[in-house]
Amino acid sequence: MLLVKQIKSAPYNNKTLGENKTIGLLFFNPSLRTRLSTQKAATNLGMNTIVMNLNTDGWNLEFEDGAIMNGNKAEHVKEAAQVISQYCDIIAIRSFPTLTDKEKDEEEQVINSFKKYASVPVISLEGATEHPLQAVADILTITEFKTKKKPKVVLTWAPHPKALPHAVPNSFAKMMQLADVDFVITHPEGYELNPKVTGNSKITHNQHEAFKDADFIYAKNWSNYNDYGQITSQDTSWTVTSEKMKLTNNAKFMHCLPVRRNQIVTDEVIDSENSIVIQQANNRTFAAQAILTKILENHDS
Amino acid sequence: MLLVKQIKSAPYNNKTLGENKTIGLLFFNPSLRTRLSTQKAATNLGMNTIVMNLNTDGWNLEFEDGAIMNGNKAEHVKEAAQVISQYCDIIAIRSFPTLTDKEKDEEEQVINSFKKYASVPVISLEGATEHPLQAVADILTITEFKTKKKPKVVLTWAPHPKALPHAVPNSFAKMMQLADVDFVITHPEGYELNPKVTGNSKITHNQHEAFKDADFIYAKNWSNYNDYGQITSQDTSWTVTSEKMKLTNNAKFMHCLPVRRNQIVTDEVIDSENSIVIQQANNRTFAAQAILTKILENHDS
Amino acid sequence: MLLVKQIKSAPYNNKTLGENKTIGLLFFNPSLRTRLSTQKAATNLGMNTIVMNLNTDGWNLEFEDGAIMNGNKAEHVKEAAQVISQYCDIIAIRSFPTLTDKEKDEEEQVINSFKKYASVPVISLEGATEHPLQAVADILTITEFKTKKKPKVVLTWAPHPKALPHAVPNSFAKMMQLADVDFVITHPEGYELNPKVTGNSKITHNQHEAFKDADFIYAKNWSNYNDYGQITSQDTSWTVTSEKMKLTNNAKFMHCLPVRRNQIVTDEVIDSENSIVIQQANNRTFAAQAILTKILENHDS
Repeated sequence: MLLVKQIKSAPYNNKTLGENKTIGLLFFNPSLRTRLSTQKAATNLGMNTIVMNLNTDGWNLEFEDGAIMNGNKAEHVKEAAQVISQYCDIIAIRSFPTLTDKEKDEEEQVINSFKKYASVPVISLEGATEHPLQAVADILTITEFKTKKKPKVVLTWAPHPKALPHAVPNSFAKMMQLADVDFVITHPEGYELNPKVTGNSKITHNQHEAFKDADFIYAKNWSNYNDYGQITSQDTSWTVTSEKMKLTNNAKFMHCLPVRRNQIVTDEVIDSENSIVIQQANNRTFAAQAILTKILENHDS
Repeated sequence: MLLVKQIKSAPYNNKTLGENKTIGLLFFNPSLRTRLSTQKAATNLGMNTIVMNLNTDGWNLEFEDGAIMNGNKAEHVKEAAQVISQYCDIIAIRSFPTLTDKEKDEEEQVINSFKKYASVPVISLEGATEHPLQAVADILTITEFKTKKKPKVVLTWAPHPKALPHAVPNSFAKMMQLADVDFVITHPEGYELNPKVTGNSKITHNQHEAFKDADFIYAKNWSNYNDYGQITSQDTSWTVTSEKMKLTNNAKFMHCLPVRRNQIVTDEVIDSENSIVIQQANNRTFAAQAILTKILENHDS
Repeated sequence: MLLVKQIKSAPYNNKTLGENKTIGLLFFNPSLRTRLSTQKAATNLGMNTIVMNLNTDGWNLEFEDGAIMNGNKAEHVKEAAQVISQYCDIIAIRSFPTLTDKEKDEEEQVINSFKKYASVPVISLEGATEHPLQAVADILTITEFKTKKKPKVVLTWAPHPKALPHAVPNSFAKMMQLADVDFVITHPEGYELNPKVTGNSKITHNQHEAFKDADFIYAKNWSNYNDYGQITSQDTSWTVTSEKMKLTNNAKFMHCLPVRRNQIVTDEVIDSENSIVIQQANNRTFAAQAILTKILENHDS
């Protein structure tokens, strides 16, 4: 956290660290914040950046060991990861879950395959079950905006028309368990996250109760984890509204973005002064820059 | 104009101006000249460049205020513009018109939404109704190639198989009204451009008369403005030919490109020594570099 | 060869050579190694890199002279090549063959059109019939791993589910004819490459005989050249296996990648210590950097 704050206060102070180093950003899925903030972070450190949309720019990858590759997959991740390691000093990957094959998603097949075969450090830009750099940006944002030593932080489920991954709520919940906060998760019945992730976190199905005296409201949709990848509720009574925000201790509103307005949150709340989603997005750069700094500094050790 | 010429004569003279500055080039539509020339211009100034095809790399954007976002649009321009402003010091956008919704096109919904919500300068790389950097390149080209103080410049409609925007002829017509030229527009009946744009410009439906003694022939197709976005003529008697060029005062031939050969203009004309379309395309770099220079110089003022 | 080795031993020794120079990488087809290694090479020389997927980022190109462009092709290569030459100091192009029109493929219509109209040097990143930078990487790899003055090098056909180009085997066969090696080509009957390319090279339909005492096995599929672009065999008895490798003189295994595992080669062989496909891919950077160095050094002469 100290490193992230230092970097934010002087982002260009380490421009020789990345000299002659290349980061490869590999996207299997759409990205706005992650794509831009990681490029920005790398450039701030003097690194070269190569961006690839793997599915369209390159070859369809095979991930199964022992596969007889006579179908539509032209390259095995064993070669891809080793080869990219020849050209890049760091590999960063975004790969969403299938939301249909729970086991494969929990294995983080794509990112872990790259980690297994690459000969350079591999960073997650959001995997099937984790979005670690988002969580670093989140805790930095909370630290910056908190007005008491131990704020009450609420992670609330909210409705969304599509089935979304668990990566963001998972990483946020893990981060909150490490932080000095009073952490509460609220969601409709049946929408429990992986209990290994939530651990001893307080969980309630009563959103109003959760919001009471909260200092931070972190809204996020996720699909059903038990009935894996299904949408079992689109209950708009869970949308974050001004009325609910009045229950809080003048709480700040957070979301990882992109956000569905008037589904996840009303215009009134996200357009209010208490919304800090843009500052939160801005912190993505410094989260990325911190991890890159650490990797580059350890490169020769 | 002076600035553009200075830049062209010494394009690398200001390489520290853009140090630690990032430009985000956001494309909603295809681009060749604009994509390459703006990257070149930014690099000449020492800027970092991030290029995104928004529709495919990122998220489908919602532009309507108050929308209940439960459809296929994942992010509102309000967030997108503010967020990109966190990572980029200048935002440059290409967004073609719908050619079906005249009102929305004339409002320049996409670019103006970005301008409204971004916290950094926003540049048009061709909007629904204007292509300003093309017009700067055009006037620079005319200035370079004119052989008399006040040349006769003719903007002529020419046939094309697809419905094309009005942005290029609009911006060219506006620029010519500011320039010291004898400006004439010629097109088939019914193909009048927006009268607010053409103002007091001479307009004739007689292409032969228009070409008489012309010093520059600027060919361009546009779809019908009154019968909005429709193709009401594909009359190939409007193609620019060598015979018609003989009516001129040894005129130079101009076009913004890409150009449909043997529709807009015959091979003979565009391949002739009087064709200056490549020099015109080259000037796109210096037009872009001039606007970037101005923005960067005013950045802290 | 000397230049390539020098570059490999000190890749950042010439970082001012490419200052203020831009390379445009134009892709009509997917690419992983070529895309990354050429960007890496250009960056190592201090060049700026612009990457474009021409078919999706830009305009559909017309290549036929005299075409009446009233179809779906928006820009002629005549303009595209000249225009890109205004923004880039070197143009590099990947364009696969049609595999249906032998004559057009052998004319290398795409790359040769760019060469004809561009005003800057044009490099092939794999054309219809040649992949020259791959061949440079290949001979460098053989030079690094050979254990005798004149090694036996075998190019063997292997099965593949799709019709593949002849560019890689063609360029490899040409390179081997220039090298101090004992070169043998082996493939099923009917799969003869262009005899103008293979020249006096030894050719056998007996793969086992070919492998005997070989020092390098270079596996590659290609489609039928005589029955042009057709797949007339998918005979998996041609797959490179450990049993066949035992016939060799402890040969190294090579392939240009991407490779279909358990079609072209078994897991056992490509995962063995004798497989040098990753080192071979790594050498792509230095092959690219060598050609760029030569071009940049001759730029003003």
